Amino acid sequence: MKYTIFGESHGPAIGVTLTGVPAGIALDLEEIGREMARRAPGQNDWSTPRKEADRPEILSGVFEGKTTGSPLCAVIANGDTRSGDYARTKDLARPGHADYPAFVRYGGCNDYRGGGHFSGRLTAPLVFAGAVAKQILALRGVRVGAHISSIYGVSDEALEDWDSLRAAADKPFPVLDDAKGEQMRAAITQAREEQDSVGGSIECAVFGLPAGLGSPDFGENAEGIFSQYLFAVPAVKAVAFGAGTAFSLMRGSEANDPLYMDDGGSVRAEQNCAGGINGGITNGMPLVFEVTMRPTPSIARPQFTVDLARMENAVLELQGRHDPCVVPRAVPVIEAAAALAACELMGI
Amino acid sequence: MKYTIFGESHGPAIGVTLTGVPAGIALDLEEIGREMARRAPGQNDWSTPRKEADRPEILSGVFEGKTTGSPLCAVIANGDTRSGDYARTKDLARPGHADYPAFVRYGGCNDYRGGGHFSGRLTAPLVFAGAVAKQILALRGVRVGAHISSIYGVSDEALEDWDSLRAAADKPFPVLDDAKGEQMRAAITQAREEQDSVGGSIECAVFGLPAGLGSPDFGENAEGIFSQYLFAVPAVKAVAFGAGTAFSLMRGSEANDPLYMDDGGSVRAEQNCAGGINGGITNGMPLVFEVTMRPTPSIARPQFTVDLARMENAVLELQGRHDPCVVPRAVPVIEAAAALAACELMGI
Amino acid sequence: MKYTIFGESHGPAIGVTLTGVPAGIALDLEEIGREMARRAPGQNDWSTPRKEADRPEILSGVFEGKTTGSPLCAVIANGDTRSGDYARTKDLARPGHADYPAFVRYGGCNDYRGGGHFSGRLTAPLVFAGAVAKQILALRGVRVGAHISSIYGVSDEALEDWDSLRAAADKPFPVLDDAKGEQMRAAITQAREEQDSVGGSIECAVFGLPAGLGSPDFGENAEGIFSQYLFAVPAVKAVAFGAGTAFSLMRGSEANDPLYMDDGGSVRAEQNCAGGINGGITNGMPLVFEVTMRPTPSIARPQFTVDLARMENAVLELQGRHDPCVVPRAVPVIEAAAALAACELMGI
Amino acid sequence: MKYTIFGESHGPAIGVTLTGVPAGIALDLEEIGREMARRAPGQNDWSTPRKEADRPEILSGVFEGKTTGSPLCAVIANGDTRSGDYARTKDLARPGHADYPAFVRYGGCNDYRGGGHFSGRLTAPLVFAGAVAKQILALRGVRVGAHISSIYGVSDEALEDWDSLRAAADKPFPVLDDAKGEQMRAAITQAREEQDSVGGSIECAVFGLPAGLGSPDFGENAEGIFSQYLFAVPAVKAVAFGAGTAFSLMRGSEANDPLYMDDGGSVRAEQNCAGGINGGITNGMPLVFEVTMRPTPSIARPQFTVDLARMENAVLELQGRHDPCVVPRAVPVIEAAAALAACELMGI
Repeated sequence: MKYTIFGESHGPAIGVTLTGVPAGIALDLEEIGREMARRAPGQNDWSTPRKEADRPEILSGVFEGKTTGSPLCAVIANGDTRSGDYARTKDLARPGHADYPAFVRYGGCNDYRGGGHFSGRLTAPLVFAGAVAKQILALRGVRVGAHISSIYGVSDEALEDWDSLRAAADKPFPVLDDAKGEQMRAAITQAREEQDSVGGSIECAVFGLPAGLGSPDFGENAEGIFSQYLFAVPAVKAVAFGAGTAFSLMRGSEANDPLYMDDGGSVRAEQNCAGGINGGITNGMPLVFEVTMRPTPSIARPQFTVDLARMENAVLELQGRHDPCVVPRAVPVIEAAAALAACELMGI
Repeated sequence: MKYTIFGESHGPAIGVTLTGVPAGIALDLEEIGREMARRAPGQNDWSTPRKEADRPEILSGVFEGKTTGSPLCAVIANGDTRSGDYARTKDLARPGHADYPAFVRYGGCNDYRGGGHFSGRLTAPLVFAGAVAKQILALRGVRVGAHISSIYGVSDEALEDWDSLRAAADKPFPVLDDAKGEQMRAAITQAREEQDSVGGSIECAVFGLPAGLGSPDFGENAEGIFSQYLFAVPAVKAVAFGAGTAFSLMRGSEANDPLYMDDGGSVRAEQNCAGGINGGITNGMPLVFEVTMRPTPSIARPQFTVDLARMENAVLELQGRHDPCVVPRAVPVIEAAAALAACELMGI
Repeated sequence: MKYTIFGESHGPAIGVTLTGVPAGIALDLEEIGREMARRAPGQNDWSTPRKEADRPEILSGVFEGKTTGSPLCAVIANGDTRSGDYARTKDLARPGHADYPAFVRYGGCNDYRGGGHFSGRLTAPLVFAGAVAKQILALRGVRVGAHISSIYGVSDEALEDWDSLRAAADKPFPVLDDAKGEQMRAAITQAREEQDSVGGSIECAVFGLPAGLGSPDFGENAEGIFSQYLFAVPAVKAVAFGAGTAFSLMRGSEANDPLYMDDGGSVRAEQNCAGGINGGITNGMPLVFEVTMRPTPSIARPQFTVDLARMENAVLELQGRHDPCVVPRAVPVIEAAAALAACELMGI
Repeated sequence: MKYTIFGESHGPAIGVTLTGVPAGIALDLEEIGREMARRAPGQNDWSTPRKEADRPEILSGVFEGKTTGSPLCAVIANGDTRSGDYARTKDLARPGHADYPAFVRYGGCNDYRGGGHFSGRLTAPLVFAGAVAKQILALRGVRVGAHISSIYGVSDEALEDWDSLRAAADKPFPVLDDAKGEQMRAAITQAREEQDSVGGSIECAVFGLPAGLGSPDFGENAEGIFSQYLFAVPAVKAVAFGAGTAFSLMRGSEANDPLYMDDGGSVRAEQNCAGGINGGITNGMPLVFEVTMRPTPSIARPQFTVDLARMENAVLELQGRHDPCVVPRAVPVIEAAAALAACELMGI
């Protein structure tokens, strides 16, 4: 299963083409809608007020409610766009954004309106694709969940099991510990009031993957496969598996996960520092990773930058509607990327 | 340019096949030899005493000193192997190693001797491939360097420029600040004396990449491409670009890199939190990232594990020769992976 | 540049997603429309009377008339569908069609109406993609053309040069020799009157490709690249380059193309038996090949087959609208496939 | 499973790297040797007198007689080389060969001696890879066989079943009808005596493939997958499935293969014009195709050509040892390519 996201924020439509979908999957469209609602903007005070129906229309690949096995294309029409917000500053490269490298890469021909193909809005079709992937995985006993693990230094508790993670997913602000969630929201609110934004991180786990998937080799190892999907999510700047960066502070005697036979005759580990992967291959424990997301680059404060049309220094004062923190809405996006990665790892 | 590493630690030979090599590159074999010597074991007290000649023989793809453009295969014969060290414990899955997942993945048919295809020794052909890649990049003004950024909590200073990085590379213990290096070596020595091992991290930079390489799309974004090469290096568990995990503690006003026109008419950034990449595309600043490496899983202390032949609990007491810390010897390996990734990004 | 065709004949829409399109190409939409009209049905007495507007809507990847460099998705709504024609015989596998293998491949879940994803109608988005590719190629001096080379044993003359090929393309029945074209049309008409269909072949040439593209290696050789695109066109059963199957009747002294220096200092060949390719690499002569297309499998005569629902023998009497020969309308489709292959070969 | 052939005819060695090999396959090395002997030169009067031991050394991926599942590299040392034969004419592009396009493609850096990477000798590692593939296929009931179907206009009878094909494979001159074989050999002998060469064709069949493999889509269709492997064999210029080019002479009522239920409850076809593939998907009938091979370009007659060093017209008189017809020795090569293609189609 491979996906291709297409579309620009203010073009006619955005969407996704999914190839390699197994035939005969009865898609639960309501469930897909719920997943997309988790990402949708305009719902609360920590996200952009832009309203989007985000109702995907499936053009192909589904017949009588089931996947046909041929390419599935779904499109989402663009509605509430206010391109005027962008025209005034279109030549000013927004710091932290891809404006300048995209200007070089695409010879100045990319659609600048609303971030064009770089817009966070493009994560909507990704969530669609991930929702399809999740339904396929669920049939094989594999489940994917995530929660906000930190925002601007406020940390959620570490994930314990599927049930608590599942419960967090249903919250409007997906954390395990709601008290920490309140502190995170306060940090976001304060940043917005100060015309600023904040970064954070998301912890994600894939439960139910069998041992023996992946390989140590380039292009086949489990961490490499997951990381490619995760870094394709805008704003992700770091990916860490298991104990992650804390491995640099550890000794082997701490980091090694001792093995034992469980009552059912399966090999299990007493702890999961490896995050479910050894030598690029799944070991049957939950596959756990954390991604770090940069603060939203779009902030209302004046910023030094360059005018790409005149090639001279300039000061940017940004208008438009922006999330002061992308992390909360990114939780289902990271789950989507993980679900698609898990499908590749399972040979789906 | 694509690489395939082959071989097992105690088989006849290990090696690499490189396809897509540009034709007409005059290879500096001495320089390749120096790169390989940086990784070679048996040189000092913090690495395994196993001696290897590590002299690669080029079987194809080079004619009259220049690359032909056809696949280049180089092999390194395996010499000083002591398989007996491994036979005694071959059924005991080493915690932290891939023994158990590999047992499932390969149906018990993988070569267990010396770690087989999972051995750190397989990084020798990777360094060879990276050395070829570096020579190709150098012709285009692109240079790759790395240093140990931390071991067991002792941190080197952050990298400043190419010259200091280049100087570090030539040291037997590649750090910028030798005093910190001494502390790191002490930490390694102490771990070894306590039959243990330690983890650490490596910071790497690619200088000279032009702006405009990559794309935000899956499979094409710069971070995704680099991460796939980096996670294919054994023991790497986290990859972070620019400010990396620190982004989660930052505000947008700190994290955004203000832009300006330099004297030569180029767009530059005043800082490089982005690590040279915005929206998956290079921005012309140095591409900077850090990888975290887990502590060597092979430690002499007794460890709880399972016997895969009898499927019962067991205690493992490991023999054999092992690095108490893989980080120092991994510096040229990370550079190699980065050089190969940079080639892919440049369309080489 | 990669394409993905999606859609089913009687679903909401069909379309294509193109990735890797160079940025900044000013698309001539009228020219694209002309290409699509060459393939469109319902125009004359040798094609199905189904009417299709076939007006592609570009959803993404084009901004202010130019390609953005991000994925380009174009969709064509399905209009004049008469699914009732198919329901009656939906369980009867049509001989010569993919009904039975698709039934196995997709577990009976593929959309059977109008051939579903197997419909010749799916070549419309392919022609769209090819028209984009042709415009990109034209900017580099590369032109693609084709003509009907034979139908049911009646052969057109062999192609001479670009001008005559270009002239043929504009004809409603694209042959070089109109007298032969008349005979071919007579053969088609007679087949239709006898409730039958006929096969034929198409000769195609790519002019202007530079020497030195491709490689002898798997996945990189020019013939392999072209053949993969060509066999993805429905009904193509044979692909032959240059002298093609006649090589089996030749001696080396006839088949070798003698070389000489032309007045401009270029290496040229006195004849082009190689079809512009030696050892998998273009040699600067026109790249010439012929594809053979099977007779339309949908014929009105009673045919022996099996009922896939009851798994028993049956007799099929087909209704619906079918071309008695797909060759004439396939000419622009083969050109499209060749144009996309040429782009891959040129690294576009 | 993917293969990469490396090596040059007069370099240190040639070989192949195979990735994705299933673990646990007990390789029959004698059987591999027999396959390689079928291709080896120097055995008779219709092939080059060059002697090669062609004994492959397996460097990796096999442990205790079984595949490990990690990359398998096998090398064949180059022995009886006479580079002097080539030095004299190294700047004269041999007509029909890739000399000129390779000169452009590789900037004059390719190894010209003995054809370098373009040498027919490079089919030896391909036969090795195919022999491994055949053993994997045999475990799943899939068998591959081929015979010479024509040489210089003399045609063998059409293949009937596996047994006769198997019998042909064991002959020194692999034809079904030995009388025809005699005529073919006479044609070859006469061509050699006249310092010329002849072309021909090979018919190949894969028995035992299940229905339902492949897809109509680009990159996934059965014909496209096979053709990519087949055109990677030197000298192949045409690939035709089932009735092949004869489809252009047929009506649908002849070309459609009527279906019926056989006694075992399986869907079968009464004839096999489709060559086992409909709509890019296997239908359970034998997959049958024919390839056309051009006459050996190396002939002793004087030929007009250009001198690539001086860029002027020249006359070439070739020395060296060459097969007057590559077809007989190519039979196991085509089988190897087909076996590797069948593995890809089966998801191996």
